[in-house]
Amino acid sequence: MSPSPSTPPSSSPSSSPTVVCVFGSGSFGTALACVIARSSASLRSAHNATSIQPSMEVRILTRRPDVAASINLHHRNPTHMSSFPLPSSVKAFTDPAECLKNVNFIVHVIPVQSSRAFLQDLAPLIPADVPIISASKGICGETLCMMDEIIPQALGRPDQPTAFVSGPTFARELMQDFPSGCVLASVSDDVGKKCSALFRSARMRVYQHDDVIGVEVGGALKNVYALAAGIADGMGWGLNTTALLVTLGCREMGQVASAMGADAATLSGLSGIGDMMLTCFGSESRNRTVGRLLGEGNSLADVLDARVGTLAGVAEGVATAPAALRLGKSKGVSTPIVAAVCAILEGESAHEVLHKLLAYPVHANGDLVVTS
Amino acid sequence: MSPSPSTPPSSSPSSSPTVVCVFGSGSFGTALACVIARSSASLRSAHNATSIQPSMEVRILTRRPDVAASINLHHRNPTHMSSFPLPSSVKAFTDPAECLKNVNFIVHVIPVQSSRAFLQDLAPLIPADVPIISASKGICGETLCMMDEIIPQALGRPDQPTAFVSGPTFARELMQDFPSGCVLASVSDDVGKKCSALFRSARMRVYQHDDVIGVEVGGALKNVYALAAGIADGMGWGLNTTALLVTLGCREMGQVASAMGADAATLSGLSGIGDMMLTCFGSESRNRTVGRLLGEGNSLADVLDARVGTLAGVAEGVATAPAALRLGKSKGVSTPIVAAVCAILEGESAHEVLHKLLAYPVHANGDLVVTS
Repeated sequence: MSPSPSTPPSSSPSSSPTVVCVFGSGSFGTALACVIARSSASLRSAHNATSIQPSMEVRILTRRPDVAASINLHHRNPTHMSSFPLPSSVKAFTDPAECLKNVNFIVHVIPVQSSRAFLQDLAPLIPADVPIISASKGICGETLCMMDEIIPQALGRPDQPTAFVSGPTFARELMQDFPSGCVLASVSDDVGKKCSALFRSARMRVYQHDDVIGVEVGGALKNVYALAAGIADGMGWGLNTTALLVTLGCREMGQVASAMGADAATLSGLSGIGDMMLTCFGSESRNRTVGRLLGEGNSLADVLDARVGTLAGVAEGVATAPAALRLGKSKGVSTPIVAAVCAILEGESAHEVLHKLLAYPVHANGDLVVTS
Repeated sequence: MSPSPSTPPSSSPSSSPTVVCVFGSGSFGTALACVIARSSASLRSAHNATSIQPSMEVRILTRRPDVAASINLHHRNPTHMSSFPLPSSVKAFTDPAECLKNVNFIVHVIPVQSSRAFLQDLAPLIPADVPIISASKGICGETLCMMDEIIPQALGRPDQPTAFVSGPTFARELMQDFPSGCVLASVSDDVGKKCSALFRSARMRVYQHDDVIGVEVGGALKNVYALAAGIADGMGWGLNTTALLVTLGCREMGQVASAMGADAATLSGLSGIGDMMLTCFGSESRNRTVGRLLGEGNSLADVLDARVGTLAGVAEGVATAPAALRLGKSKGVSTPIVAAVCAILEGESAHEVLHKLLAYPVHANGDLVVTS
């Protein structure tokens, strides 16, 4: 009897592939699985000999047997990015123990708000020396933690190696193999080097550094500003307003990040302003789309209901906005744009809130911050 | 006999209006004339009495009698932004002496490459104490000067008061009165204050500071990076690539600016990254449009010929790119993105040049710069 399609055939016994497990079969998890599979293929091709570089197996962990079966049998994810074929080295599993067997790297692409429970469940199966690379961006509404705290806490292992990848990368465009760039941060240079190499290729520039907090704050807050950009768009304003809000947002985001100990240079890079401009100006952004619907006068409940129905994915900014507001307050940083987004999410009139925001006096010292 | 339509009727003798002359009747000159006229109207309305605030007369200087006649008789600029009515306080003149009579402020919106000759001609008519606010952005190909040097040199008056306005402001969206923001820099705080007030309104946030060089470098170089963004777009790549190039461009631009003595904070503001994101992501950008046509495989000569025919306006980046490359070299700053744009403008294959650019090794220290 052939194995169940949700358990792919095992690799040939003679090879010992590098095993990368991707947690999450949404758009971004699927896209990162492809980036890693292609990076490995391009390395092998560059070395022109399969014996020099180990082969790579990229395993997507999903709860849904139908998704796993489609990936393993047809090399397609039927629910996300379904128009793109996946490389044959990408496989899918529904059984976490099978998926994590001989794992060398874990890529975590589960929404921040569900990550703690998810990782607690899997903790016994995750080896203590395997690096976990988080691509999840946001602030936990309950604890105000970001992934750099959630991972070790959930696993109960403060020394689990971790890295954090972020940057201006729409999933669809990663699937299309357009040239892209990202930042990978780890407090360990050695872990950072190994993890960067997983993603790097002729089509993916990976910039490694050590400012984990800077990368995480940029990744989390950009979703809130994308909501603001979308709201302004939904109100019928143009790109001048978007650019104004986003530039003020970059400054506000930088002040939160600095208060948390981040390096300002990180916020000026791909995971800061780079991701901000993509997320706030690009039409593929979920958060911008949710913001636009709010700006058009829809209620948050209606917008979220409609998105659940279309599998359009989580807009992390909705949960992150109130958390970011509390985080800013706890650090003594004024965040009027985040506060405006929160007010609109809570049902205040977008017109009233944004007009009030843009009527704040210009700071006397010429600083860009909208003072409240 | 009624006066010629290119000389508007004079104001009533009892009033002594503030007179603002705008040099240039293109899209941006027309839009700034409206912004100033509206700013004045909103001030007068806020004070609820015409006697407290002086009235404002905004005079556009144009070479074309038909343009002047249309503005004065029909309150429309027939060649640029013709779908928008102009406020009645905006008038037009073809005679510089008439236009500059009793002038209080000058707003200069003439292409940088023509500005020296233009100002030299008008020098005898421009009072030595009238502030000139430049909205022209670029580097003179002949002298590598920017407007802060061109204005005093052309007038032969080193002490002419000057200010420099820049920011993410598409002309069309200024006409639509969408909320916008800009920066106004002057070495004189007093001149800066007076000039800022000209533009400020509920719809226009004006941030004043003193970093003239920072504002000018941002305004000039953003057009070159917009060409790069357009080229990548024309090659069929997506927004991930745009965001990568623009973020690398922000860093490159910041290094040129720093070498010239600018404040890094200026480049992180509206006239730096704010204008970069608008110009590089927005479809209204001339430079991005020219870049896209180049990326699609058209020659520069064909692109420029076609634009002359449609009055689509000057793409300053085309002249600024080679000047910026020389300027960077003279300051010891490597500018590989500017160099790539120059190579493509000179006829090299966009595919080859951009593939080579994006294959440069990632800097060992994690810096974002593409090293050559």
